Parts: sequence; C-alpha cells; structure tokens
Amino acid sequence: MKAVRLHEYDKRPAVEDVPDPAISGPHDVIVRIGGAGLCRTDLHIYEGQWAEKSGVRLPYTIGHENAGWVEEIGSAVTNVAPGDAVILHPLVTCGLCRACRDGDDVHCGNSSFPGIDADGGMAEYLLTGARAVVKIDPSLQPAEVAALADAGLTAYHAVKKAVPLLPPGSRAVIIGAGGLGHIGIQSLAALTAAEMIVVDAAEPALDLARSIGAEHTVLADGSQVEQVMELTDGHGAEVVLDFVGEQGAEADAWGMTRDAGSHYVIGYGGTVQIPTLDIISTERNIIGNLVGSYNELVELMALAAKGKVALHTRTYALGAVNDAMDDLEQGRLQGRGILVPNG
Amino acid sequence: MKAVRLHEYDKRPAVEDVPDPAISGPHDVIVRIGGAGLCRTDLHIYEGQWAEKSGVRLPYTIGHENAGWVEEIGSAVTNVAPGDAVILHPLVTCGLCRACRDGDDVHCGNSSFPGIDADGGMAEYLLTGARAVVKIDPSLQPAEVAALADAGLTAYHAVKKAVPLLPPGSRAVIIGAGGLGHIGIQSLAALTAAEMIVVDAAEPALDLARSIGAEHTVLADGSQVEQVMELTDGHGAEVVLDFVGEQGAEADAWGMTRDAGSHYVIGYGGTVQIPTLDIISTERNIIGNLVGSYNELVELMALAAKGKVALHTRTYALGAVNDAMDDLEQGRLQGRGILVPNG
Amino acid sequence: MKAVRLHEYDKRPAVEDVPDPAISGPHDVIVRIGGAGLCRTDLHIYEGQWAEKSGVRLPYTIGHENAGWVEEIGSAVTNVAPGDAVILHPLVTCGLCRACRDGDDVHCGNSSFPGIDADGGMAEYLLTGARAVVKIDPSLQPAEVAALADAGLTAYHAVKKAVPLLPPGSRAVIIGAGGLGHIGIQSLAALTAAEMIVVDAAEPALDLARSIGAEHTVLADGSQVEQVMELTDGHGAEVVLDFVGEQGAEADAWGMTRDAGSHYVIGYGGTVQIPTLDIISTERNIIGNLVGSYNELVELMALAAKGKVALHTRTYALGAVNDAMDDLEQGRLQGRGILVPNG
Amino acid sequence: MKAVRLHEYDKRPAVEDVPDPAISGPHDVIVRIGGAGLCRTDLHIYEGQWAEKSGVRLPYTIGHENAGWVEEIGSAVTNVAPGDAVILHPLVTCGLCRACRDGDDVHCGNSSFPGIDADGGMAEYLLTGARAVVKIDPSLQPAEVAALADAGLTAYHAVKKAVPLLPPGSRAVIIGAGGLGHIGIQSLAALTAAEMIVVDAAEPALDLARSIGAEHTVLADGSQVEQVMELTDGHGAEVVLDFVGEQGAEADAWGMTRDAGSHYVIGYGGTVQIPTLDIISTERNIIGNLVGSYNELVELMALAAKGKVALHTRTYALGAVNDAMDDLEQGRLQGRGILVPNG
Repeated sequence: MKAVRLHEYDKRPAVEDVPDPAISGPHDVIVRIGGAGLCRTDLHIYEGQWAEKSGVRLPYTIGHENAGWVEEIGSAVTNVAPGDAVILHPLVTCGLCRACRDGDDVHCGNSSFPGIDADGGMAEYLLTGARAVVKIDPSLQPAEVAALADAGLTAYHAVKKAVPLLPPGSRAVIIGAGGLGHIGIQSLAALTAAEMIVVDAAEPALDLARSIGAEHTVLADGSQVEQVMELTDGHGAEVVLDFVGEQGAEADAWGMTRDAGSHYVIGYGGTVQIPTLDIISTERNIIGNLVGSYNELVELMALAAKGKVALHTRTYALGAVNDAMDDLEQGRLQGRGILVPNG
Repeated sequence: MKAVRLHEYDKRPAVEDVPDPAISGPHDVIVRIGGAGLCRTDLHIYEGQWAEKSGVRLPYTIGHENAGWVEEIGSAVTNVAPGDAVILHPLVTCGLCRACRDGDDVHCGNSSFPGIDADGGMAEYLLTGARAVVKIDPSLQPAEVAALADAGLTAYHAVKKAVPLLPPGSRAVIIGAGGLGHIGIQSLAALTAAEMIVVDAAEPALDLARSIGAEHTVLADGSQVEQVMELTDGHGAEVVLDFVGEQGAEADAWGMTRDAGSHYVIGYGGTVQIPTLDIISTERNIIGNLVGSYNELVELMALAAKGKVALHTRTYALGAVNDAMDDLEQGRLQGRGILVPNG
Repeated sequence: MKAVRLHEYDKRPAVEDVPDPAISGPHDVIVRIGGAGLCRTDLHIYEGQWAEKSGVRLPYTIGHENAGWVEEIGSAVTNVAPGDAVILHPLVTCGLCRACRDGDDVHCGNSSFPGIDADGGMAEYLLTGARAVVKIDPSLQPAEVAALADAGLTAYHAVKKAVPLLPPGSRAVIIGAGGLGHIGIQSLAALTAAEMIVVDAAEPALDLARSIGAEHTVLADGSQVEQVMELTDGHGAEVVLDFVGEQGAEADAWGMTRDAGSHYVIGYGGTVQIPTLDIISTERNIIGNLVGSYNELVELMALAAKGKVALHTRTYALGAVNDAMDDLEQGRLQGRGILVPNG
Repeated sequence: MKAVRLHEYDKRPAVEDVPDPAISGPHDVIVRIGGAGLCRTDLHIYEGQWAEKSGVRLPYTIGHENAGWVEEIGSAVTNVAPGDAVILHPLVTCGLCRACRDGDDVHCGNSSFPGIDADGGMAEYLLTGARAVVKIDPSLQPAEVAALADAGLTAYHAVKKAVPLLPPGSRAVIIGAGGLGHIGIQSLAALTAAEMIVVDAAEPALDLARSIGAEHTVLADGSQVEQVMELTDGHGAEVVLDFVGEQGAEADAWGMTRDAGSHYVIGYGGTVQIPTLDIISTERNIIGNLVGSYNELVELMALAAKGKVALHTRTYALGAVNDAMDDLEQGRLQGRGILVPNG
C-alpha cells in the first residue's frame, strides 16, 4: 500500500509502497483510511522535536488523526465489523490498568500512539485495536471527522471538565479560536448556556467565533485582560480555557480568571508563573488537560452527527502530503488539512 | 473591658480598657471570649504587613481565631441563645450574594473579618453576627478549639476537597506537619483510608505525624522528592497538600504529584513556576485553598467532639499577650498559643 | 390595596381592600406585584385540600408565583433597591440552618411560603424578604416570568440534577409536556445535547414538544412503554423525568428507565410500587424532586433573558381572578394564567 | 481435578473429577483456587431458583466468590503472572462496551458470571480472564478474603456511593448487621466519620456492630423506626443502607430517611411502595445497588490489607461442601463458609 513515511529527521516524509498491515492478535483491527488529519505536530515530528520523547524507530508512517472503514478484524473483536465507518481514538490502550478501568484512557500505563510512536494513518490501511475504534453515524464521512480524533477531542475534553462550573449566567473565556478553540466554542454552545467571550489576535477568527455562538469577542491587542474584566463586571470569568498557552496567553488566562474560578491549560509553549499567595488568597485553580477518553470521543461523534460540532477542512490526496505541509507551514491552509488515500 | 489593642505599626499591642461592645442590629451576637488563638499572622499585623490590604483604622483589637459563650443576641437571632458555647467562623458574611447562597462563605462579596479589618477577639467580649456562630459540643472547651476556627478550618477545607481523589490504595503527601499540617493529617485519617506520606524538615514534627496516622515520614533533607518517588513506585501521589508554599516546597509539591493528580497550595510565600507543556502532558492540576465554609467548621467541630481532631495548645492570660508573642517569635511556643481573658 | 382574599374553604376568594403591607424588620422587602401566576394548587387551596397541611389562618391572600418591582426595603437590605424588577423565590428562608448554608433553600428548617401559609402575591403589594428576591434582566417583564417562580423552577431543578447523567448520545424521556414539562424540555435543550423523547396523551402537547426541541414524541395510547423501548434499542433511557406521577405514569416511568439509570419523580398523585429485587438487579434509582434553590432561580432567569426558556401566558386583571379560575377549572386556559394588578 | 458439580435441580451437588480447564484465548487466566465462598445464593441455585434467569446448562461447577493463585496465563495477559495471589471480580467483562469503558463493570453488556452461568470456583482450578483478576497483598490469604469478592464488594459499593452524603456530623443507619452489613459498617468506619446507627433483630449482631464502630444499636423489636427517629432528633438519617430489603425493612428504611436523604436498597425480597406525593414533598431518593466494580474490589483489598475490613470465616474441605450447606441451611454457620480445595 501507499504510505507517508518519515526516513530522516529534518527531511520531509516520502510517499512510498510498504506491505499492507496484517492481523496477528485477536483484538487487532485493520482500518481502510478515509481521512488522516494533518496537524502542526506532524511538522514538529519531521523537524525532530518528538524524536527523543517518542523514541520511534525510523522509518515509520505518520498520521495520528484517523478515520475510515473497518477492513478486517481479529478473532476476539465484537464491537465492530468489516464495513463499519469508524473514527480512531488516538491511543491504543491496555484495558487492564487502573486508569483504563476508570475510563481514563489517556493515562493508560501501557499504551501506544499510532502516528507518534507506531505506524500511523497517512496510508491506505492502519493496524489498530478493538479498544480504539468508535463507530460513527452513517450521516458522517470519515474524512470530515478525522481531525476530531485528536484536536477536537482535546477541546471537547477540557470543555466537558468545565461544564459543572458553567451554570446559566456564568461566563467562559476562550483564548484562541483556531483549530482547537473553535471546537471548544461549539462544544460549550452544545453543553452549556454560559456566556462566551472569545479572545484572539485575528479578526477572522473572531468573526468565526461569533458565527458559532460567542456573545462577545475581544481582539488581543494588548488590552485583552482589561476588556475581559469590563465584560465581567471587574471579576473575571468562572472558567478560562487557554488554547494558546504561550506568548503571554498563559498569564492573561490567569488574570481573566475570577476568584474561585479555574484556568484550563490546553495550549502550550509558555510557562505559568504565579505567587502562591495569589493562588491561595483568591482560591483559583489551574487545570491541566490532555486528549479525551474513548467515551468522550463517542460523545463528540454524537454532537457531530447532530450537526452541533463541525470542522472546516480541505482535502488533499495522500500523494500531495508535502503540498499540504507547505500550505500549513506557510499559513495558506484555512481549516484542517485532511489527507485522503485514493482521494 | 480589657482588650489587646494595636495603636501603631511596628509596635507591640497594648492591653487596655475599652467600652464593651453593644448590640445594634437584629442579627448581632456578642460573645464572651473563652479563648483567642495567637497566630503568626498576628505578628505580621503588628509589623504592618497587612496595613494596606486590610485597610483597618488604628487603634483596633486583634484576634481572629475565637471561641467562647454567647452573651447577648439581637432580636432576629434564632440559631443561638445566651450561654451557648460557640466557635466563630472567621468571616461575618452577607448571606445574600451568590457565593453565600452556595455555601461558599469565604468568597462572600460583602464580608468583614474581625481581628483583621474589624475589632477581633483578644478581648473579654466580641461583637459578631448570627451567621458566624457555630455551637460546639458540651464536651469541648472554647479555649481548646479556638485555633481550629481559622488554621484548622483551612487545613480541613483542603482535605475535604481532596477526599474524592483519595480512595483506599491511593497516596496523599503532606508537606509540613506544623500547625495546619497536623490538622490536615488528622482530617485525612478521619475521612480517608489513603496512605499518608508526611514531609517535614524537623524530626519532632515527623514523630508527631507518625503518632497521628502517617504511614511514612520523609525528612526534608534535599532528597525528599526522590524519597517520595520511591515510596510511590516512581509515580508520585494522587494528592499533594503543600502546607509550606515557599522555600522550594512549592516546586517539590508539583514534582511529587502523580500524572492526573492534584497539587493543593495552602502555604504561601514562594512562586509556582511550571511550563505549560509540563502541565498538559501530565494533566496535573494546581488547586488554590482558602479557609473553609461555615458548614465545614460545623463538620470540624463534629470531628473534634469525637476526638478525631485535637490541637496542642498553651494558654496565656490576656494580659500576657506580649509574653506569648515573644515565645512565638523566638520559637519557644510548642503548639498553639491561646489567650484566655480572666485566665 | 386590592388583594385576592380567601375567607372560607370551598368558596371562591374575594377581591377586596386590605391595608398595604409595611416594613417592620431590617431584611423586609415590599414588592409591587407585576404578575402573579394562577396555579392548579390555588384551586386546591380554596377547596380546602391544603388547610391542614399549611395551617394558615383565614382570611389570607393567595398567590405563590410572584414577580414585580421593589417598592421599599428594610434597613439591612443590600441586594436590591427600590425600582428593581424582581422575581420571588417561593420560600422566605432563614439563612442560618445547615440547608440554607448549603444553598439548599427548599429544605430550610424555618421558612414561610407566601401564598400558602402567609399572605401571597395576588395583590398590589407583597411583603417578602431580602433572601427571596431575584433581580431580573431589563429585557424581561415581571408578568411574563412570574410563573417560572414555582412551576418553572421545579422543572429546572429536576433537569439540573439530571444533567450529569446526560452526555451527548444519551436519552431523556419526558412524561407530560404541560406547564412544568415544557419548561423541562426547554431546560434540557439549553443544558444538554441529549436526545429527547416526549410522551403525552395529547397531540397538541406533542406538537409543542417538537417545536421546542424534542427529537421524538410518543402518544400515550397504551403502547408508550413499548414505543420508548423501541426508540432506545430495547434498553430504556438514562433519565426519565415524570411530570405526571399518577394514573400509571409512575409505573411507565420506571419501565422506561435503563439499567443504572434514574427515574425522577416530579408529578404526583399515584404510588410507586417496585420489588426490591427489581431495584437491585438493575441498579436503577428513584429521585425525588421539589422546587429549586434561589441560585437555580437566578440561573433560570438567565435562560429566560437569553430567550432559551419562555412561557405561554394569558393575563387577567386582578379583579378577574374568578374568571381566570373558571377558565382553569373548565380547561379553557391555554398556557398559564397571570393576574396583573391594575392590568 | 475435583469440582462441586450440580447435575439436577433440587438435588445437592456432587464432588467429582472433571478435566482441568485449559487456556484457549490470549486473555485467559487459570487460577488455582485457595478459597471459594459459600453463599445463600448457592442454596437458591441448587433449589432451581436461578435456573431460568441464568440459563446455565447442567451439569456445571458452582462457586462465585473466589480467590487463589494464578496458575497459567494466556499470551496477551500482562497484569498478573503465575504465582500471584489474586481475588476474582465476580464478572468476566468485555472491556469494550460503554459501561466497561466507564469503569462500570457490572453493567457490561456482554459478561459472564462464573459460578452462576458458567463454571465457577468450587474446584481445584478456575478458568477466568485477565479483566477479572485482582492481585492481593502478600499479607492476605486467598481463603480469608474470598467472600469479599461478591458479598463484601456489594456492601463496599453501596457505602462508596453514599460517602459524599456523609460528612462529619451526619448519620448513617445500617439495617442488618449480617454478612454484607458488617462489611458495610467496617467500610463506613474506614471512609467516613458519620455516626452509625445499626438496626438488627439479633442481639449478637448488634454486639458485633458495636465492636466494629457503631455508635448506636437498635433492636428491631417493632419500635425501630421510632428509636431511630429519637436518635436523629426526629429527622431521620441522611443515609439509610438497607441490607435486608424484605419483611418490612424496606418500609422501615424509607421511614428512617431524612428529608433530602437517600435510602439505599441492597437486600431484596420485599416491595417498595411509596406515594409519589411522599417522594416529592420530602425530596428523598431510593438508590439501587449491585456488586461493585473491579477498581472498587482493588480498593476493598487495600482496606483488607490495612486490617480495616475483616471477615469471620469457617473453612471446609471441598469434599465437605454438603456439610457446609447443611450448616448454612440449619443456621449453624457463624460467619462465612469457605471451601478450600486440598484443605
């Protein structure tokens, strides 16, 4: 089959022929890929930033946001059948550790992450496991939803944790209305009646935010903390979701959080730096966030099937991966790039 | 009546005669003081560190950890009667704002704090309100429990928030087994079956910790993070309660926290400094903590009545306040100093 | 002022002149009534069904769903000012008991209930307390929202408790799409993305249900349990909200509840009768529901201000109370009847 | 190997030779049995009461409370190794359905229940799966803890659900201090500081209850509801755990539950019968309870290892199963009977 293979760090991947994957274990599932999301992380991977952390052996196939159709299943697989349209949870988990037994898949003590530390989905077929496949509604196309598998699921997970803090009349600030942020906004609109205040440095992102439910938008022009304070009667918001996490957003986010409120860190790159006196005298919290669980991906697919969460995408043939990477690197890619085998 | 009055910053308070307080509003309550805790904060007050923040006008009466007997009540008071033994929640709250209506007294938008920004309890009588008085069990003496009103309630509150994260088999690290920490340890022992690991720089504090339920103690000799890691199979603890919050403890606490775990900031003085990448890749949380609610003080008094939480105290006559301050400043005071009028 | 006074059981109330209420306590609030909802309970009151339970002394003024404008306030009232538009929480609570301190107003140990056991709001003015008044958005008229004070708040409260059980992809069955039920449906649509299945014996109620967000409607023609089972793949729903509670609905509701699900009892009249073996072998729950808290009324008003919850009403002049009662008794009243002084 | 086989309903099982079980799937685990609990359910099984519900084909091996040592593992098993001492969660679950993914093992849509609908543990060896085995502390003997696998886990599960309702100062009533109830009492003592009131018809059970932490005991002599009301200031308890569920206990339990409180149904046999008016006007709940989850069994084993939960047992050789059944049927068995192969 064709696959996007990384042979060497700091060089772009190549599209080449590799053997088709084969079922070897009873819980194995082979998925015919319908779409594989291209993510900024894929750029970081070829640049070598993940080399040490992932420990992956080159060459390997990238692509960690995958959806398609079940092609073949192992002898013990009961939850999907060949032909089912599926999206893939990014982790293949053990199902036996305490975290897995609690539904907290991402903290599995014994998982693999196809596209990061194992062969991924920028290929015609992907080998995964029964615990990673989520059936999707017939109304959804794999290529439409693939990028919800990781980016979307991360945004949804943070929102899900924040929902109990967001009764009607409360406020949520969303910093960054990009790939993750706009899924966060749609998820908040679906699950709460909180007032949404969206902060971004780009006007088009704010336009998009208003069109999907934001009551207020704030241009990040240096006065964003003051503006949010004015919009919240001087108190700040019960919840601040920071999808940026660097270049000052991480400090802004804390400054926009109300006493007894919570600051969710989702984007990364910067450093949070807060006097303990400031933490205790206001009783504010900082909440870490990773990708969501399998059941949360099921929930996100239910929102997508209802039309409550939608992604802007642009498709590329698998062979055009480097065009897609060029477009992403050079800021020409609006929405998510999706690689489609035989597309 | 006699009262401990602060006339000037950077000078010790004086014990002198002032008029008795009088009932003026229908929810007023006058309490005959049985004991007023002496706290390190009282030292900071006379040194002027709170001058700007509290905005209090001098002279005034200090003392913010108070218990005694109801002397007189306003016309609308229904929850206590003269003669009742009571402990006082540190805040006098409005009862009308959203926080008060949610039982979250400490975030009341319109409260006063006797001993900090209004006349306090180092006196024969204190004027407070119906919303601040908690009846105590006949088996308890006001002077015994006074210091639970603020220090103890802060420790209990943090523990109460952590309980859902501490099923049997989980671990809690307690950094600092001093005034607050040893109430935290007793509260954990009363409300969970978690394994407790106590970290302190002083051996006698660790001895005390073991005597009240700590399974493991770790001397903070520079290797404390490594020791905790060894005691937790290399993972860290689900919950770390940092009662120190300065001089490196705030960094240790984060380092001892397990993936998906929570680091409770209770002590203060230092600065938390953490890369957002570290926060999100491990999905750890930082939880701010202030003093507990009125209902939590009721609960803490139930624990005290059962003998599950006890304080080490040393009593001084009200007139000996400066001896007590000397002892506290010079490290000669074991346990909490309690000022007893006519004691 | 004019007021609707009940002088004798089994006789309709009279509209007559009574003295205006006066402020006597520091937390008193006098409200100029803008609208008072007429409720089936008012019929039960004049028929004497509440005589023993309420213990009220005749004559008195009925009306327990009230909204208007603050006319005058006691000396200690800080949360409203004359001229403010307000809706009234149905209970006047003590603010001092454990339930009040937990935000659980309805379980206050020392409350009164104007319109039931004290003078109510079918009058030009009502005497209430600072703890009962909720400011409403300028976009809302008191007469529009008055009936949300009790009926609406009960529906919202049950929904709020059920929200954590209703992630995207789950199902909620609503039995009864009448006065309470249609507020329940709107609240579910505002706070969840659950699939709603509405059961009612009347086609117009089902039409209304579909127009406000129900995905499925089921005519209660004897096959309603089977129909719900078909719509839920044979499992039943995670949550069943029974707004009827009699004439078989209470048994249907249990039968429509999925294993590990919860059956919320809101309507009443019948008797729940279930073998304990059936309860334990399926681990289903039965959840009691009363009117919501003050903070929940604040939240419901936020939903109303956003246009997410709306009531169908028909207004009557205060003097036409008996016309309104006739219309209600004879089934001629679509939506809620609202009495408007000087209307 | 030797096994206790049921050949015909209404006849006692026979001890006979059957082939040893063999590994066939990659997640299979064979356990050498150290102890199998004898339960009243085993009597009901041979009497045929479960014939229809379980649908099991005779002959088969009974025994559903099992512990022992891992003898052999399938190729994909990573969580245990031969020689490990283990207790067995009663269900062998799929790990793939929503319930399993949420940690809610008992509501797995695709499970088997060895000893009920598949060969059980009254034998020298048992075939189970990787998802059912919980490693136990070296300080614990399988025969000591076997009966915690089902009876104990059911009691612990109900207590775990009730813990958030039981802050210090609250009350829990426990009806029935027998096999399940005395584990419930120990679990409450380990996880809460609530005041325990134990109700039983037998004085020795009440003596035991006091020895393991009950503050109050009430003889069920017909006045038990009145006695509990007196002990709770006329209000009833926040939580009532009914381990009996028949012969009037199910009505007593409801009557002993405080407004806004919860009645946990654990025992069974009777019928709950409550007017919906009574449910809503007091906002009480009825909570169904089944056996706990795998992670809860891990937690219960942590309590057992700490000595916080202990069972009274009497061991019998496997060949003496009918003696044990005689003793159980005739009320001669104090504590739990445990069958020990080669014992």
